[in-house]
Amino acid sequence: MENIQPIFWLVPITSIVALSFAYLFYAQMKKKDEGSETMKKIAGHVRKGALAYLTQQYKVVGIVFILLTCLFAWMAYGLHVQNTWVPFAFLTGGFFSGLAGFFGMKTATYASNRAAQAASESLDSGLRVAFRSGAVMGLTVVGLALLDISAWFLALNYFIDDANPQHKLLIITTVMLTFGMGASLQALFARVGGGIFTKAADVGADLVGKVEAGIPEDDPRNPATIADNVGDNVGDVAGMGADLYESYAGSILATAALGAAAYMRVDNAAQQALQLQAVIAPMLIGAVGTLLSIAGIYLVRTKEGANMKELMGALNTGINGSAVMIAIASWFILYFLGMHNYWGLWGSVVSGLVTGVAIGKATEYFTSHGYEPTQKIAEQAKTGPATVIIAGLGTGMISTVMPVLFVVVGTICAYGFAAQDWTFSTGSISMGLYGIGIAAVGMLSTLGITLATDAYGPIADNAGGNAEMSHLPPEVRKRTDSLDALGNTTAATGKGFAIGSAALTALALLASYIEEIKIAYTHLSADKLAEVLHKFGFESLAQVQSMGLVEFMQHYDVHLMNPKVLMGMFIGVMAVFMFCGLTMQAVGRAAGMMVDEVRRQFREIAGIMEGKAEPDYARCVAISTKAAQKEMLLPASLAVLIPIAVGLIFNVAGVVGLLAGGCAGGFAMAVMMANSGGAWDNAKKYIEDGHFGGKGSAPHKAAVIGDTVGDPFKDTSGPSLNILIKLMSMVSIVMAGVTVAYAVL
Amino acid sequence: MENIQPIFWLVPITSIVALSFAYLFYAQMKKKDEGSETMKKIAGHVRKGALAYLTQQYKVVGIVFILLTCLFAWMAYGLHVQNTWVPFAFLTGGFFSGLAGFFGMKTATYASNRAAQAASESLDSGLRVAFRSGAVMGLTVVGLALLDISAWFLALNYFIDDANPQHKLLIITTVMLTFGMGASLQALFARVGGGIFTKAADVGADLVGKVEAGIPEDDPRNPATIADNVGDNVGDVAGMGADLYESYAGSILATAALGAAAYMRVDNAAQQALQLQAVIAPMLIGAVGTLLSIAGIYLVRTKEGANMKELMGALNTGINGSAVMIAIASWFILYFLGMHNYWGLWGSVVSGLVTGVAIGKATEYFTSHGYEPTQKIAEQAKTGPATVIIAGLGTGMISTVMPVLFVVVGTICAYGFAAQDWTFSTGSISMGLYGIGIAAVGMLSTLGITLATDAYGPIADNAGGNAEMSHLPPEVRKRTDSLDALGNTTAATGKGFAIGSAALTALALLASYIEEIKIAYTHLSADKLAEVLHKFGFESLAQVQSMGLVEFMQHYDVHLMNPKVLMGMFIGVMAVFMFCGLTMQAVGRAAGMMVDEVRRQFREIAGIMEGKAEPDYARCVAISTKAAQKEMLLPASLAVLIPIAVGLIFNVAGVVGLLAGGCAGGFAMAVMMANSGGAWDNAKKYIEDGHFGGKGSAPHKAAVIGDTVGDPFKDTSGPSLNILIKLMSMVSIVMAGVTVAYAVL
Repeated sequence: MENIQPIFWLVPITSIVALSFAYLFYAQMKKKDEGSETMKKIAGHVRKGALAYLTQQYKVVGIVFILLTCLFAWMAYGLHVQNTWVPFAFLTGGFFSGLAGFFGMKTATYASNRAAQAASESLDSGLRVAFRSGAVMGLTVVGLALLDISAWFLALNYFIDDANPQHKLLIITTVMLTFGMGASLQALFARVGGGIFTKAADVGADLVGKVEAGIPEDDPRNPATIADNVGDNVGDVAGMGADLYESYAGSILATAALGAAAYMRVDNAAQQALQLQAVIAPMLIGAVGTLLSIAGIYLVRTKEGANMKELMGALNTGINGSAVMIAIASWFILYFLGMHNYWGLWGSVVSGLVTGVAIGKATEYFTSHGYEPTQKIAEQAKTGPATVIIAGLGTGMISTVMPVLFVVVGTICAYGFAAQDWTFSTGSISMGLYGIGIAAVGMLSTLGITLATDAYGPIADNAGGNAEMSHLPPEVRKRTDSLDALGNTTAATGKGFAIGSAALTALALLASYIEEIKIAYTHLSADKLAEVLHKFGFESLAQVQSMGLVEFMQHYDVHLMNPKVLMGMFIGVMAVFMFCGLTMQAVGRAAGMMVDEVRRQFREIAGIMEGKAEPDYARCVAISTKAAQKEMLLPASLAVLIPIAVGLIFNVAGVVGLLAGGCAGGFAMAVMMANSGGAWDNAKKYIEDGHFGGKGSAPHKAAVIGDTVGDPFKDTSGPSLNILIKLMSMVSIVMAGVTVAYAVL
Repeated sequence: MENIQPIFWLVPITSIVALSFAYLFYAQMKKKDEGSETMKKIAGHVRKGALAYLTQQYKVVGIVFILLTCLFAWMAYGLHVQNTWVPFAFLTGGFFSGLAGFFGMKTATYASNRAAQAASESLDSGLRVAFRSGAVMGLTVVGLALLDISAWFLALNYFIDDANPQHKLLIITTVMLTFGMGASLQALFARVGGGIFTKAADVGADLVGKVEAGIPEDDPRNPATIADNVGDNVGDVAGMGADLYESYAGSILATAALGAAAYMRVDNAAQQALQLQAVIAPMLIGAVGTLLSIAGIYLVRTKEGANMKELMGALNTGINGSAVMIAIASWFILYFLGMHNYWGLWGSVVSGLVTGVAIGKATEYFTSHGYEPTQKIAEQAKTGPATVIIAGLGTGMISTVMPVLFVVVGTICAYGFAAQDWTFSTGSISMGLYGIGIAAVGMLSTLGITLATDAYGPIADNAGGNAEMSHLPPEVRKRTDSLDALGNTTAATGKGFAIGSAALTALALLASYIEEIKIAYTHLSADKLAEVLHKFGFESLAQVQSMGLVEFMQHYDVHLMNPKVLMGMFIGVMAVFMFCGLTMQAVGRAAGMMVDEVRRQFREIAGIMEGKAEPDYARCVAISTKAAQKEMLLPASLAVLIPIAVGLIFNVAGVVGLLAGGCAGGFAMAVMMANSGGAWDNAKKYIEDGHFGGKGSAPHKAAVIGDTVGDPFKDTSGPSLNILIKLMSMVSIVMAGVTVAYAVL
């Protein structure tokens, strides 16, 4: 493949540009006024706690990665069921995903007191510091992802030896998928561990501090308050960074793999020549999206003394501006790459972008207290906590309808445009699936800026915490609160993109799995190959390689009357429920420990309520850290073990069912959990704004209970599901060789 | 089919026997002492309210049935896309399902005061009256189902004119499936409407009476207490009766339809001759199960002065005795019918029975306060309602693991035994699917007695209410409470059978759907047929008819890479979430109205708390009735409309995805809701038994909130899901002709 097109170099160059801008914004932020000594001290406490947590987390995760790398090495070099590059790709994916989280968190912990100080000057300055710090994370994530992708692509292109350039591209792209698995696993640990940490601290702080002792949020007398602020950083910032690194890289890699496969299989020689373009197209869309995101970040400007609506307008200008520019630019990319159906593929990109925006709007409708659903939940607080909970769960469940319909329409359109075939017949299937992948890439192409608006929320939140604990004037807290509220709305859009892209990427990975099963045949030893070919009634390896996706599936009896497929689906949905249950229980247990500890400190440390004695903050941080480390192992391990077990027992048919069931079940559950949690949170805020009795009334107490139940929903279990459904697919892909060689049924 | 085997007559005869025993038990119960005038008066109030509700309910449902019957008549006689018997079969299914609920409820409302009076004599007499009254419902349900099935079978056999006896059997069994749809729709209305009624009243009575006013449950001063007792009858008794009629008839009908299809397709002429036997085998297993259930009911005997453990032992002797006898007897049935693989099919029956028992045991483990999960939820009450809710939801989600694994193993075994092929290849698929149906029938064969133990719980509950309101001595209430507690445990087993059989039946119906699509081709007019054959690339009607299930599916591009299938799955899971959300919100809204009304009466009716003035019971009943009627229409309508819409837009591929996704998602959700709800209920009881502070403590108040949230989980949304997943399949089957003729994509 000496003929890599010059335009490809845009990808590594963009990654350098993005990382440079990230550094620039970081340096700018570091130069801002740090505020008073107290503010510095508190920020230092939080930073120390967050770094200590992350160090501990990476140690535990490191051990898991080493064990899995050994396993993959054994599979590659001992069992010969896998490409020898797999262990290395897996490790780098995990490393870069962790790095993205680390940089984001470091920035956030430096930014909190600076944003608080800036907010004490004006709302606009506060926004600027917080938003630019969020942009550091956004650009770091996309920059690292593009760097990693282009580096691996170039390296594998150099080292892999294959006379057939088309086959070589297939190998390269599937090896690169394993670095997606590393990123996913790291992200799952980050989300689950961080989510347990932050929600244990949050629930503990709220239940004893706000509800029992009646002191405000972030009050320095509350022993769990530092842990709560540490949690915002390790969960909402580091967790989200790793999560979106995984989403972004995963969508590009899955699409590249599908592109290699789709264009290899077309009959038309002219189209076959487009395979390389199909592989680099998603990378280029990502690169151009990143450049335009940087442009969008500069569009976010506000006048001095801007009000909330103008601030929101400023952010929207940035996001919408980027989206429109990307939609236009991607047409040119597809056109100049010379793709034969550039109009169709462009239709797929736009389908993805529109679907993401639509899901975001639906999320906003169901979770913002400007609309009826959340107001109704708030109203149910009049009859107590039980009816608040019932209403919130009900609303969350109903809120799955619109996102599912948007994904349905988006997927059908992305497929139909790319395949240029609306009968969905077998012939055009590879091209259609490639279109679904392209839609996911399109949806995430604005990540550079949407992630900035997402990450700035927790920074504003932390700035508020810092202001509260440093006894800054109340108007500062009010400003940071309005920045935080603004962040909640933009975060809703961000969540729409994250969930929607997860569904599309998982569908693309489902197809990659079948491709990988076919490729796995090429790794087998001669004896094993003969055995497997015989077992499944194939005549030769060449026959396997020449088969279309659907034909090959039929040979494996992957159809919807096969009980292995149907039972795989049952297990897939069950895995989603089990994963949510385990993480929810983990939060419940850890929060219970935190409640006991805060109650103990209130009881035993004399003078704590009068502000004369300092609470033992470190102990609360230690409790959350220990609980998170202990509790994250089981759910994360099951996410790896279930697809392996299903593959070994129920073979390809079972795995396809598992992934399809997990994807459909996981999507609905993720939307429900995110929206129930968001709606409870905002119903509480709606009451705090003076409705139904306002702060301190019985309805408010009921709404706080709803919000507390929603905490693990929206910040632990829900966001982890996006990763879970992709991780299960990635694990299945990496284990394809083992499944082919050793499956029982 | 002049050669119906004599052994078939066992089915109608058994139905007469079962109905006779039901009447016998009913007459015996009616002869018991009615108790004091107060007791009679209260029972009269409840009976009047329940009958008024049921009358109102049947009026609303009647209108829906008339509309749908007109639609089906138009489809059959106007559009010619359906068999002309369909409208009639649909109507009778609905009628008999409603009748089963009506008889059961009537018995229960006569039994409550008599059981209370008997319990004031001794625990044993109380058990006897309550259990025998429950048996009336069990035997009525199975008796009516067998009557309806055999009557239709004989009638269609007489009237349908078809030279080919094999084809005739196929037509007969698929027409009979439409009466399954009628039964399912009636059952869904009964469950949803009854569930909303009972939980609105229950939640309203508890929240204001127990939590706010601090008066005990069933206190006559509580205005909602009569409505609460009415609710037990219309929800738990009438709803359950209609539900299990639907499950029982549905499993037999689905299996008969699969039997007709499976044996039509085998190559072996000797096996083809077994088609009639395959059709009547499930009916016979049901009949023999009913006879042995009656024997089991007589096994339930207790000594005077028996303790709880002995009572439990007595019930278990009855249930287990019946199950073992049925396992043995079904071997003889299959053997004497002359089935070629009678050992294999017997394996399927036993797989079903064992799976049902195993799910029941798992349910008991997760919901009984004798085990750790529920005790841990109770412990979380120490830190308040939020942690109780989080723990209960978490436990419910985790509790899906074992039932799913049992269904997986049970399904794989049922399929493998029947197909005598553990490679799950295409050739043996019809036989394997028939085995899954047979397993569902086996699981439900003990329904006569398990339903008796299920239905006696609400009767004991009502007896307790009657005792409380009539100011009987406290030991009477204590006795009825222990009977109720006993009922909770046996009901767990009953729920296991209901949920497990729903999953297996839905899987069987998935195959029936494909069969029905093939049959639908035969109803089309010549023009339409030519158009459709051309559209899907078939050469002739004969080609369609000769195709195997899988081959036919492939022609329709029903495979797991087709976005229509995958999007159908997304919609299927979404339908489950939406349905739960709508029913939960309905309960929340109705309960809110009830809370307002009870608060108003406490405030406005002077002397109510001193017992000097009587509350306005009727108004609470009216509120629940109105709310239930209004709120049940939307969720039930969507259950009918969604499969129709998906069929019309996404064709067969979409529907198969919808049904598979709905089945997998619905099963997990149903288990979670039933178990979370049950665990919260029992966690509260565990605290009331004196743990973690006991009655009236803060943890108790937190646990009551958990229990209240669980009410719609376990008694409204959860049990309705079993019906939903089958109803969606049945609707798809009935609409097959429309889908074939008019689908867009």
